[in-house]
Amino acid sequence: MFGWTGKLIRVNLSNKEIIIEKLNMDDAKLYLGGRGLGSKILCDEIDPKVDPLSPENKLIFMTGPMTGTFAASAGRFNVVAKAPLTGTIGASNSGGHFGPELKFAGYDGIIFEGKSDTPVYLHINDDTIELKDAQHLWGKDVFETTDLLVQENEEDAKVACIGPAGEKLVLFATVMNDKDRAAGRSGLGAVMGSKNLKAVVVRGTNSVDVANAEEFKKAAFDARNKLKNHPVTGQGLAAYGTQVLMNILNEAHSLPTNNWQTSWFEDADKISGEYLTENYLVRNKACFACNMGCGRVVRIPDGKYKGIVAGPEYEAGWSFGADCGINDMNAIDTANHICNLLGFDPITMGATIACAMEMYEKGIITKDDLGEELKFGDIESMIKWTERTGYREGFGDIMAEGSYRMAEKYGHSELSMSVKKQEMPAYDGRAIQGMALEYATSNRGGCHVRGYLTSPEILGIPVKTDPLVTEGKAALLKTFQDLTAMVDSSDICLFTTFGIGLPEIASMLRGATGLELSDEEILEIGERIWNLERLFNIEAGFTREDDTLPNRLLNESVTTGPAKGKVAELDKMLDEYYQLRGWDEHGIPTDVKIDDLKIDSKAIEASC
Amino acid sequence: MFGWTGKLIRVNLSNKEIIIEKLNMDDAKLYLGGRGLGSKILCDEIDPKVDPLSPENKLIFMTGPMTGTFAASAGRFNVVAKAPLTGTIGASNSGGHFGPELKFAGYDGIIFEGKSDTPVYLHINDDTIELKDAQHLWGKDVFETTDLLVQENEEDAKVACIGPAGEKLVLFATVMNDKDRAAGRSGLGAVMGSKNLKAVVVRGTNSVDVANAEEFKKAAFDARNKLKNHPVTGQGLAAYGTQVLMNILNEAHSLPTNNWQTSWFEDADKISGEYLTENYLVRNKACFACNMGCGRVVRIPDGKYKGIVAGPEYEAGWSFGADCGINDMNAIDTANHICNLLGFDPITMGATIACAMEMYEKGIITKDDLGEELKFGDIESMIKWTERTGYREGFGDIMAEGSYRMAEKYGHSELSMSVKKQEMPAYDGRAIQGMALEYATSNRGGCHVRGYLTSPEILGIPVKTDPLVTEGKAALLKTFQDLTAMVDSSDICLFTTFGIGLPEIASMLRGATGLELSDEEILEIGERIWNLERLFNIEAGFTREDDTLPNRLLNESVTTGPAKGKVAELDKMLDEYYQLRGWDEHGIPTDVKIDDLKIDSKAIEASC
Repeated sequence: MFGWTGKLIRVNLSNKEIIIEKLNMDDAKLYLGGRGLGSKILCDEIDPKVDPLSPENKLIFMTGPMTGTFAASAGRFNVVAKAPLTGTIGASNSGGHFGPELKFAGYDGIIFEGKSDTPVYLHINDDTIELKDAQHLWGKDVFETTDLLVQENEEDAKVACIGPAGEKLVLFATVMNDKDRAAGRSGLGAVMGSKNLKAVVVRGTNSVDVANAEEFKKAAFDARNKLKNHPVTGQGLAAYGTQVLMNILNEAHSLPTNNWQTSWFEDADKISGEYLTENYLVRNKACFACNMGCGRVVRIPDGKYKGIVAGPEYEAGWSFGADCGINDMNAIDTANHICNLLGFDPITMGATIACAMEMYEKGIITKDDLGEELKFGDIESMIKWTERTGYREGFGDIMAEGSYRMAEKYGHSELSMSVKKQEMPAYDGRAIQGMALEYATSNRGGCHVRGYLTSPEILGIPVKTDPLVTEGKAALLKTFQDLTAMVDSSDICLFTTFGIGLPEIASMLRGATGLELSDEEILEIGERIWNLERLFNIEAGFTREDDTLPNRLLNESVTTGPAKGKVAELDKMLDEYYQLRGWDEHGIPTDVKIDDLKIDSKAIEASC
Repeated sequence: MFGWTGKLIRVNLSNKEIIIEKLNMDDAKLYLGGRGLGSKILCDEIDPKVDPLSPENKLIFMTGPMTGTFAASAGRFNVVAKAPLTGTIGASNSGGHFGPELKFAGYDGIIFEGKSDTPVYLHINDDTIELKDAQHLWGKDVFETTDLLVQENEEDAKVACIGPAGEKLVLFATVMNDKDRAAGRSGLGAVMGSKNLKAVVVRGTNSVDVANAEEFKKAAFDARNKLKNHPVTGQGLAAYGTQVLMNILNEAHSLPTNNWQTSWFEDADKISGEYLTENYLVRNKACFACNMGCGRVVRIPDGKYKGIVAGPEYEAGWSFGADCGINDMNAIDTANHICNLLGFDPITMGATIACAMEMYEKGIITKDDLGEELKFGDIESMIKWTERTGYREGFGDIMAEGSYRMAEKYGHSELSMSVKKQEMPAYDGRAIQGMALEYATSNRGGCHVRGYLTSPEILGIPVKTDPLVTEGKAALLKTFQDLTAMVDSSDICLFTTFGIGLPEIASMLRGATGLELSDEEILEIGERIWNLERLFNIEAGFTREDDTLPNRLLNESVTTGPAKGKVAELDKMLDEYYQLRGWDEHGIPTDVKIDDLKIDSKAIEASC
């Protein structure tokens, strides 16, 4: 077996049965791994209409055929389940070392089903797999839990776990691994919490075999060299991390500020990657097999969380920063660290606080609701509500449902800057039109990494396109979405695509797996995955009406910068996008498209 | 270059100069590495009469030619300096991962000289070497220091450091590495503290080349197989750790109890390896490249130090247990953990408390001195004085000088169960006659691992000898001492010698280094080292009169068991030992012996 290990672990948490299953290789060839294969299994095994937090939902950890190999940045895995925050199919991927370790133990993935009656964790040490009591870990934060599990098990074991937020079913709780890496969006940590599954501990001592060692090595080195020589992947990301985007987006007046009321933040430079690097960076940090090293290790110089911790990604820096009108880097680092400790998504958290700030300033919520004031720019409040939300304390219990449900509760859902109830991050779709279409059509709701058009529209990678025009964006987005789905399923890091493209990734994939597929056929795998996810969502009840944006983006125009006067022109792009996708005018994949893509799944039979 | 990297780092802490030096390969072939080569450099470079805590002493970290290779248990390094506790040459070795990492960075060792005016640490990342400010680390315990240094530097960096005890010049402070591994005896951590050197942080990405890969691989696998198949190294050590000796020594009535007043402890089973395993063991733990895995990871179920920590070695279990009349495993685990946290030697600590307990019960020290009672068997006192000694608080400031200086201060040095001011551990030399000779002649004072005759005398490895007779023990000891010196210099773990012997070790050494030496010539390296150490001590002022034992061992007979009525018959063995060593009647190596062994060192010229 090459690339894949060919084995899956199936764990029934209700009756504690653990089975080793053979991987369905037909599915593996059609969906690769990670996001794609996890979604295929989910579609085959659950009813898309289930309550995400019920025992009927399943939680799937899935690696890809390149995870744990020397392929460029091949350290990722996906967590897949029906998502509590959105009700869509949910797939979030994470780096670090957990995914490779699962491969080294001999497994492509784990399927959790049912619900344990008491807290448990799964311990995998090569061939020895057992469910163990986790009552002593319940309530403990992610760092404590990880340390205790390593101490109790193998010193080199890797841990994925939930924190208090996942236990308390915060709807945007994360699955954390290697302490500060996160399968971050859509609340998959709450699914884990709903199953009373505190952690997965894995130790593996095998290696991952590749099909054609020479071809693979050549492809991997070629990819690594290109990443090394590209200014973004070879220099920018290591030097400044993703937060280098702060000044860039602000200069383009595309930096949503004060809950998207404006698109430019006067203090952006104080929360920029450059500022962070100059003042608080301790060192950078790389995931398994990665030569980019975009991770930040930063110093929090004082306060309750004083110490050296993982720094924020750009989107977290934005949510706690510009979106809340906050210009204090330490406060952002602190809030981000709290999210890592308690295990929940900093993008949704910051954006929910920003939404609450606007609601407070507009008098929709008051001191009676909160017990105190809540204004844009208030550092202490931002940190306090982050803590309280992780533990569902006071009004934090309402914030823990995300901005949409919070705003809806007070009759003002239009103030939630979300799509399909998930908050859009850090890129203003009025000033970057392709991003508007991307948010509206993303299969997991408001998200920037489901076809990152900021790359061509702002960064000019691979070629610069005009962010203000809508022409051509549908076609560009389709390609980006399909490529991303394939990358997320193979499971290398999406950031590689700043420096390498389909040909390089396809070469590594062929070398690792022995798959005899052309570049185009490999890209088609991404299209297949995209359509499968779409079909799941349709079965779950989503329609064309859900492929939309908050009123603010559609009807309130940008007030400064090159996009001044612009709104997101979604209606100019959506029909074209559906057509290019081979979907009907309701956004439903046609039978011809489904057949062409060889999609066959129990859960979406009704749609087929 | 094979085995050795051929490079040393020399750090002048006074003027902050850092130089890379070529390893003297003539010396390397004569003294191998670790303890031997470190001692050779020390003898060449310092006056044996220097104050150990003055800037004129040097502190040498030295690996061996097998460190970092796949040789059996080849994870060790030595710290070498003139020792504060004894005034002898000091060499203590430690396992874990620090030593191999230093080799991976490209260096065989580090020589620290002078004294920094403010706290610093040395950071090595392959070719980048710098002294960094350590003021923020001063006062911090070993675990905090290690965590902070890893966070500040590379995630995979390995750390050797001192704790508060080393800073405060506790005369038996340790150099700790990988948190809970220790270069444990004779107070080398105080030398580090006296130089204001808080830590050494190392990250290396190279590998160690071996001369004859095929021969080396064969020898290493052969050695590993033998270790795996031997009942002690393959089963006993992994299952029970070194503490498996507790019941064995007690059954032989050789377990010094209540400061050596008796040789049998009624509650030995409650502090045994078996009891620990059954009740508190979490898992075992191995050092780099080790297939024995004797390390203990234990649970402290309650109290201030509640948690999962490194468990004690047999000798620490003995010192805090039987020697203090204490039968509580948790108390022992706790005291041992405090020693790891604060960085000092649990053998000397427990033995010093035991000595103080006897002094208290005999009225030599009183409540006025201590502020409270101090009786054998008092668990709380034992833990309290361990903490206080690490910080030199109250009477702990006196205990921090070790039992000899403490007892001497009150006119009762005979109550210190030490040789050359260092406490003897855990094996009663009256009931194991060879151990009596071993303690008396050990080049670093009272010590069990400078020729472990308990192995043949009690365990029957390689063959059983009668522990009560003196005949033949001098010859046996000489061989064990020389073999140990060679093993400590090559730098594999001494515990391998339970399962393999000179032929297996010599084969690995030849394979790794390409040395063209017979087994006998390799054993002679050990003899050379032993004699060099002896010459250092003679120059430092030690004489035949120092090769003795506490009065209790020489004149108070054992009261129970097979050795009932026996004292340590040192006088029957010492002359024979000197003769076999080729030393004169004063215990001074003859010129013929020195020439035969090709010993040539500046510091011992006067003796030659």
